[in-house]
Amino acid sequence: MFEVRAQALLECLRQDAVDGLLVTSMPNVRYLTGFSGTHAMLLVTGTERWLFTDFRYAEQAAAESGAVAKIVIEASSLWRGLWETLRAARGLHTIGFESAHLTHRDFERLLKDGSAWTWRPFVDVVERLRERKDPGELELIKEAARVAGAALDRTMPAVRAGMTELEVAGVLEHALRDHGSEETPFPTIVASGPRTALPHARAGSRAIARGDFLLLDFGATVGGYCSDVTRTMVVGKADGRQREVHDAVLAANEAARAHVRSGMTGKDADAIARAVLEQHGLGDAFGHGLGHGIGLEVHEGPRLSRIADVVLPEGAVVTIEPGAYVSGWGGVRIEDNVRLGAGGAELLTEFPRHLIELS
Amino acid sequence: MFEVRAQALLECLRQDAVDGLLVTSMPNVRYLTGFSGTHAMLLVTGTERWLFTDFRYAEQAAAESGAVAKIVIEASSLWRGLWETLRAARGLHTIGFESAHLTHRDFERLLKDGSAWTWRPFVDVVERLRERKDPGELELIKEAARVAGAALDRTMPAVRAGMTELEVAGVLEHALRDHGSEETPFPTIVASGPRTALPHARAGSRAIARGDFLLLDFGATVGGYCSDVTRTMVVGKADGRQREVHDAVLAANEAARAHVRSGMTGKDADAIARAVLEQHGLGDAFGHGLGHGIGLEVHEGPRLSRIADVVLPEGAVVTIEPGAYVSGWGGVRIEDNVRLGAGGAELLTEFPRHLIELS
Repeated sequence: MFEVRAQALLECLRQDAVDGLLVTSMPNVRYLTGFSGTHAMLLVTGTERWLFTDFRYAEQAAAESGAVAKIVIEASSLWRGLWETLRAARGLHTIGFESAHLTHRDFERLLKDGSAWTWRPFVDVVERLRERKDPGELELIKEAARVAGAALDRTMPAVRAGMTELEVAGVLEHALRDHGSEETPFPTIVASGPRTALPHARAGSRAIARGDFLLLDFGATVGGYCSDVTRTMVVGKADGRQREVHDAVLAANEAARAHVRSGMTGKDADAIARAVLEQHGLGDAFGHGLGHGIGLEVHEGPRLSRIADVVLPEGAVVTIEPGAYVSGWGGVRIEDNVRLGAGGAELLTEFPRHLIELS
Repeated sequence: MFEVRAQALLECLRQDAVDGLLVTSMPNVRYLTGFSGTHAMLLVTGTERWLFTDFRYAEQAAAESGAVAKIVIEASSLWRGLWETLRAARGLHTIGFESAHLTHRDFERLLKDGSAWTWRPFVDVVERLRERKDPGELELIKEAARVAGAALDRTMPAVRAGMTELEVAGVLEHALRDHGSEETPFPTIVASGPRTALPHARAGSRAIARGDFLLLDFGATVGGYCSDVTRTMVVGKADGRQREVHDAVLAANEAARAHVRSGMTGKDADAIARAVLEQHGLGDAFGHGLGHGIGLEVHEGPRLSRIADVVLPEGAVVTIEPGAYVSGWGGVRIEDNVRLGAGGAELLTEFPRHLIELS
């Protein structure tokens, strides 16, 4: 698996006539080697791979990546290991680096300590490989989606008016752990009442009142792969306006799930949901894009949005998350995860989508 | 408060003869404006501050930072807003940027779209201001430390042999939420048995056995400020070797808490704990530094380590976290949070440190 990925990467590099790539994005390092720590760099060349990390990860790096890369443990700076390795290796002249994952400070190291080599910036080279999920990756995302659904199932009966958003987040995250989530892939959003109008509200100390919208946007992580799900419910009885906006967003979600597929652009996919919300007079209330890829990161390619001209690849796993937000009143978002195929979207998140009224 | 911070920053900038600073580190943006979203840039000049963010954060940015900065909401790219603002502003010629918080890709934007201005790299300019905590910041860290202690208190009686590390993490994180933690400041470490030898193990699916070491390294976030605490206990009865290593690490922790103070270097602080562990034959088993600053980030300045030559400033809040790790057997870490003063270290984490045997 890692060998297939490395070969695909080398194919890209050959086209650009570089001798290797310095990988500094941790999700990219994990994709290419399996290493799940937080501090490493990877050098990939046509014949060899070196993983540079520090003392804390010595055992873990050997266990996770020893079969696919030479592990170099550095006491002070990973850069020292890189320069020594480059000096010892023969035939490396032009090396790519990840322009979006190298700070200006580290770029200055390339220019100074790395001046014996020619450095060429690359953008999204490993990220593009990551867009198409292989069967093993798909299984992990499916399991992460299942865990998220099971956790939501356990959480809903526990929600009561009077609880704070933070308390609801505690119940939900506890259930995620019990079902096997390795970590929270992004800060859990629990928003209630008018705070549901904030598309990126975190959980706060607000006490949930009867009649409030309650929006939960959360995920699970399994084997490093994320799910990302949102459901919006009402604590108590929904009023007419709540039902109306929820129905509109649900119709947009359904239209998108029915018609989005690989081969169309991210813009066309977005337009499917947007048209439905516009029909309901909620076009302006849908201020973000329809979705984004998920995988080792919770936000990755491809994007589904008004400005995404790129064609959606077969095998990508993306969110479908139309929303409508009315400042001061509230908002609704219904988010699922699907795998894109030429014939349509395979649904990975099975949890019900109708407007649930929590008693 | 924000005004005081901005003035301190401007004082630094004046010494370097720049007309402003482009702040791209989100913790630095929050420190200077209070904005707690995840996507923004801040431009600070002698007379004005502009906060550039996107649609999702329109309400939040106005509420959190409207009094200290002009809020500029950008539909597509924050950079567009920056160029327009710079063009409209008079007298801005040389502008600093954060070299450690700007990617190479964005640096290329400065060179291309921003070529009308001169850009000068800065490292750690806001970070250095952040090292000395003001009374409001100290109160938030104290509260985050109290929340962590209360959560640990609630968790310990719930731990049983046979539970997985993930299940223990679930109980602990649930308690953190109930006590008001806004988010997990870093992935919770729950390590058991031989996995305690991995200084950066995450919680995993391993079932805890009787007689195992159990190491919990976790934190709470309150008002954006973190705590970062570690305790190591035994599930069941501790054996002689467990007690011996724990005693040694505890002695190192106590020595450091008794003698670390502002005015000494990070290296000297580290040496206090290291000497104790060396006396116990565990010098080589202490593979990381003694500690690090905490605040808006869980790892910030100042550092307390073998290579930290910088003098520790009064008012810094740091971790004291000696550890000893024996590959294949296990490890112990005892981590507290303290405020540094000239007279010594004020302890912020009150939780007991003796070797607890969970029944």
